[in-house]
Amino acid sequence: MTNPFELTATDAIKLIGKKKLSRYEWVQSCFERIREKEDLIKAWVYLDEDKALAKAKQLDNENDKKQLGIPFGTKDIIDASNTPTRFGTSFYQNNIPMRDAASVAVAKQAGCIFIGKTVSTELGHRAPGLTTNPHNKDFTPGGSSSGSAAAVASMMAPVCFGTQTTGSVIRPAAYCGVIGYKPSYGDFDKSGILPNSPSIDTLGLMTRSVEDISLFRSILLEEELVLIKKVDLKNIKVGFVKTPHWDKTDNSTKKSLEYFVNSLRSDKLNVIDLEIDNLISKSDALHLDISGYEFKRSISHERFNYYDQLSDQLRNGRLNDGYQVSNKNYQLALKELSILKNQVDAVFDEIDLIITPSAPGEALKGLDYTGSPIFNTTWSLNGNPCISLPLFTGNQGLPVGCQFVTRFGNDDKLIDFSNEIYRAYLK
Amino acid sequence: MTNPFELTATDAIKLIGKKKLSRYEWVQSCFERIREKEDLIKAWVYLDEDKALAKAKQLDNENDKKQLGIPFGTKDIIDASNTPTRFGTSFYQNNIPMRDAASVAVAKQAGCIFIGKTVSTELGHRAPGLTTNPHNKDFTPGGSSSGSAAAVASMMAPVCFGTQTTGSVIRPAAYCGVIGYKPSYGDFDKSGILPNSPSIDTLGLMTRSVEDISLFRSILLEEELVLIKKVDLKNIKVGFVKTPHWDKTDNSTKKSLEYFVNSLRSDKLNVIDLEIDNLISKSDALHLDISGYEFKRSISHERFNYYDQLSDQLRNGRLNDGYQVSNKNYQLALKELSILKNQVDAVFDEIDLIITPSAPGEALKGLDYTGSPIFNTTWSLNGNPCISLPLFTGNQGLPVGCQFVTRFGNDDKLIDFSNEIYRAYLK
Repeated sequence: MTNPFELTATDAIKLIGKKKLSRYEWVQSCFERIREKEDLIKAWVYLDEDKALAKAKQLDNENDKKQLGIPFGTKDIIDASNTPTRFGTSFYQNNIPMRDAASVAVAKQAGCIFIGKTVSTELGHRAPGLTTNPHNKDFTPGGSSSGSAAAVASMMAPVCFGTQTTGSVIRPAAYCGVIGYKPSYGDFDKSGILPNSPSIDTLGLMTRSVEDISLFRSILLEEELVLIKKVDLKNIKVGFVKTPHWDKTDNSTKKSLEYFVNSLRSDKLNVIDLEIDNLISKSDALHLDISGYEFKRSISHERFNYYDQLSDQLRNGRLNDGYQVSNKNYQLALKELSILKNQVDAVFDEIDLIITPSAPGEALKGLDYTGSPIFNTTWSLNGNPCISLPLFTGNQGLPVGCQFVTRFGNDDKLIDFSNEIYRAYLK
Repeated sequence: MTNPFELTATDAIKLIGKKKLSRYEWVQSCFERIREKEDLIKAWVYLDEDKALAKAKQLDNENDKKQLGIPFGTKDIIDASNTPTRFGTSFYQNNIPMRDAASVAVAKQAGCIFIGKTVSTELGHRAPGLTTNPHNKDFTPGGSSSGSAAAVASMMAPVCFGTQTTGSVIRPAAYCGVIGYKPSYGDFDKSGILPNSPSIDTLGLMTRSVEDISLFRSILLEEELVLIKKVDLKNIKVGFVKTPHWDKTDNSTKKSLEYFVNSLRSDKLNVIDLEIDNLISKSDALHLDISGYEFKRSISHERFNYYDQLSDQLRNGRLNDGYQVSNKNYQLALKELSILKNQVDAVFDEIDLIITPSAPGEALKGLDYTGSPIFNTTWSLNGNPCISLPLFTGNQGLPVGCQFVTRFGNDDKLIDFSNEIYRAYLK
């Protein structure tokens, strides 16, 4: 018999519907798993078992099928009422917001059960927390949504919320071997989430099935569940994008992706090699200015009041980037971005789906560096929806993700395509 | 001798530089004025005199000219650390954020002295607080930035922060007879401000001089003060936009505007009658969907936890608007908006400056209704910078504003033009 903590949300809900599982048992099982794994993985900064179990019992008693009972965690830059939000810092220990972030409020309203806050890097930037990679404790889980990826990978929760400004959902998802989803920019509300670079910041999800992405998308949009459609992959046009960063990709990841693309071609899928290096290089340059400028401003309170307590990575990284950019140059960058977005959109006139690495390789050894977002910047900046699927394994035995991207606004199609590919090509 | 509270920030800073005024005297004078007027005007929900005076004394002692000492207040949906943010509601009495909003942090860093929080309508929507119009206590001050406009008009503070999603800076500024400024969308950071409709929400300013707008713009952008340039108004092309709402405008306001435009023409300014009704009607329609959809989502915590305590105006107003819009239609509206923004931008290929009413007339009698934003929606939605100048007086003896609008991003020019017009045409 499967332990409840192993279930995807979609599967557990079915069992609850058939009275083969109670919400209480499910939540309890997740907390048992947390007790078993947390010492090693350190995914959480706050847990509220008593409240979560009480809520599960209440929902079981009420027996309203629409109250789903899904246990979920959120990255520690996302507010949950009467729960500390510490932003991955030491100086916000007593920061207890009264409001749920809109995403948390909406999930709770659907009967999802908030179980705790997951480790974030410092203020959602790079300086890591204590989380380890669930596949090997000596390796980084990636960041900035480190704890969310690690918690879902180690089956402490079926779903956790993360956020992405550069590669903070897709990369940790790839490193930890879970499914990561960054929706189209603006699709999920951000009220109650620490702004990092508001023109780019996007709330995303970590799960262990594509169905769960679809399920949580419907919950967060407060809309009926869009059933995943079967797609004949032979009818879609796919672009394999190596990017200008291909030479920074490790050999085993290159080989896995090329092998995968060749399999698709053998299976008569229409996959072209797509070269959009100019768009990607332009995105890298604009992202540096826009994210730096906006981040510097968003964390004004911290740079003026806690500068000495900020990490060198932050001070010398994005904060310093921001100090190099004038308002005039920021405005110019935004203007260029609006042109770039149209150019990126036009790429999808020719193809339906892009396949590209999620990260330059497996997770890196050591916990100091959460890895490079070079394969994520373009899609974050331009607001395209993307999903990372844990399709491969690297030389060190750690998961390697493959990233799928569609046109801005085509999230449902992305989910359909990803689901089909995951079923057909997961080893 | 002028009382310090009567001074604009620009003038007071000059006196401080010449040692003819101390920061302490200035802040103290504002609090004396508050004691004199607040019972009638009710502009404030929170004041911190002790801390403000202590800060002023400290800055006087340190005697750093760059530490400006400007007393300022913020609308009660803008966080200030260790100070309650109640969002114009009764159910957030104990909401005390640890962080300053970025705008507050940056102002404090420049030595501006936070004196308190001003009355906001409920959650920045329409249900009014207790604030009265400083020109006649039986009339609305407008909203949602009601207290900020009234505080500046009654000289309790030289500058206050407001926010605008529809007409929430320009309208109360016009009703209270102060200068209101809504910058280009995105120009001032919004971290720590309650999101209302994040694609539109803009932080703005209330002052009593155009120089003070320029001064605070430089403070908030953390850039050197851009000195206001003298403009020969004869060299700019002006469009007089009556809008499709001209027939909803009161006669005295119509006459004032037409008289003003005729004066400009007599003075050899190049003023054309500009008809952009289709763009304005399209803006009204899109604003309804986008602001409704986003607002409904932003206040998810409140609608799920405090629905019974929300006003009918909110429940039947923007919240209900939001419930009518699906995610698909929202996405379509955003797509249409990006096209509309280009069309609005193209209007400014032909002209430099738009002149249009700030509001349909004087403030209305009674405190229940904060007035109509029909003349503001287009510029809020499309992100254009606008300034309201208190140029006229209506039949009831209350101020009437005139609104000036430039191309997105042309804030400096808007300030230059407005300054010139204010000097030349203020009666």
